[in-house]
Amino acid sequence: MIMPTLEFWFDFGSNYSYLSAMRIEALAREQNVDVVWKPFLLGVVFKSLGWETSPFVVQKIKGDYMWRDMARLCEKYGLPWRQPGTFPRTALLPMRVALVGADQGWIAPFAQRMMTMNFAADREIDNVEAVSEVLTELGLDAPAILARALTQDNKLRLRRQTEQAQALKLFGTPSFISAGELFWGNDRLEDALAFAIQKRVSTTG
Amino acid sequence: MIMPTLEFWFDFGSNYSYLSAMRIEALAREQNVDVVWKPFLLGVVFKSLGWETSPFVVQKIKGDYMWRDMARLCEKYGLPWRQPGTFPRTALLPMRVALVGADQGWIAPFAQRMMTMNFAADREIDNVEAVSEVLTELGLDAPAILARALTQDNKLRLRRQTEQAQALKLFGTPSFISAGELFWGNDRLEDALAFAIQKRVSTTG
Repeated sequence: MIMPTLEFWFDFGSNYSYLSAMRIEALAREQNVDVVWKPFLLGVVFKSLGWETSPFVVQKIKGDYMWRDMARLCEKYGLPWRQPGTFPRTALLPMRVALVGADQGWIAPFAQRMMTMNFAADREIDNVEAVSEVLTELGLDAPAILARALTQDNKLRLRRQTEQAQALKLFGTPSFISAGELFWGNDRLEDALAFAIQKRVSTTG
Repeated sequence: MIMPTLEFWFDFGSNYSYLSAMRIEALAREQNVDVVWKPFLLGVVFKSLGWETSPFVVQKIKGDYMWRDMARLCEKYGLPWRQPGTFPRTALLPMRVALVGADQGWIAPFAQRMMTMNFAADREIDNVEAVSEVLTELGLDAPAILARALTQDNKLRLRRQTEQAQALKLFGTPSFISAGELFWGNDRLEDALAFAIQKRVSTTG
């Protein structure tokens, strides 16, 4: 029997992606759903839609609310939280490294640590030192992984994955693709999981 | 012992307000929270923020997603649903009538029926016939209520309530004010209720 899968589309700069990144593995495991982590460049998608930056920056009243919402949600989920001094943070290098992690099976713990660095430690993440620190903590060969992440092939791959996000009509993060349908927002994680299971049951049963 | 209260700020044209309008009374009753229904003109708030209409109209990709999201959520909550042929619908007259209902104790069933007319029957709601039909169904004196709703005093009152929404930094609907804090979106209804209870316990206990 094939496990149903849930695609998790995210960017390390996205605060609501942080919440889902920290929650998704445990929730999916409980329900026997397989998570496929899909990093992509949200800023590129925003620009293609005519949005210069995050809606939380463009619409300040919504941004101010969002910080309070984040503090409350982190308390509810029991997650560490510190409002980032820079928002949204660029994360091109960690995104490229994450693709290597997708091949080698360590993308989930890597992504969770990069996210925690951004949203709980308020540290910059788009540099070799930050990424190396996390890779080393995970017992990985940081120089070899960085070299692979910076190959032309891998850079193109991130671009292609971002184009794929656009083809799927993603417009924000976190987004989930479950049984071919788009679910947007950390608030829809549970629904997206339930949908994956329901569709699996209805097609096999 | 005073019951904790939850303010429910909404507009009849707002699709996610429909979900909360249909759910809020039962949820609040279970938890012994008193709901204060607060209609206001969301379009006026949008314009003051520089948004010409609903973000779901301005950002078509998000709007397309929203309709699918609504269909799934209505299925989940067991609510009737038909995508409105006009969106967002104006609702100036039902908003004015709703204020009379707030005084006379029938705002909740009135609002639920107007919402259902918009989002399940796909009918126009901003006219005397639609409003009278709902008032009559509720066993109320439609002509007398309409006359009161159309007084200058009542019109000013809706304007003042909209200004109050702006002072509270509302930027969308549904919004909830719980123990002095803003919660935005149908997705936050349960959290807003929990917050009202938690703050009551922590101040009295």
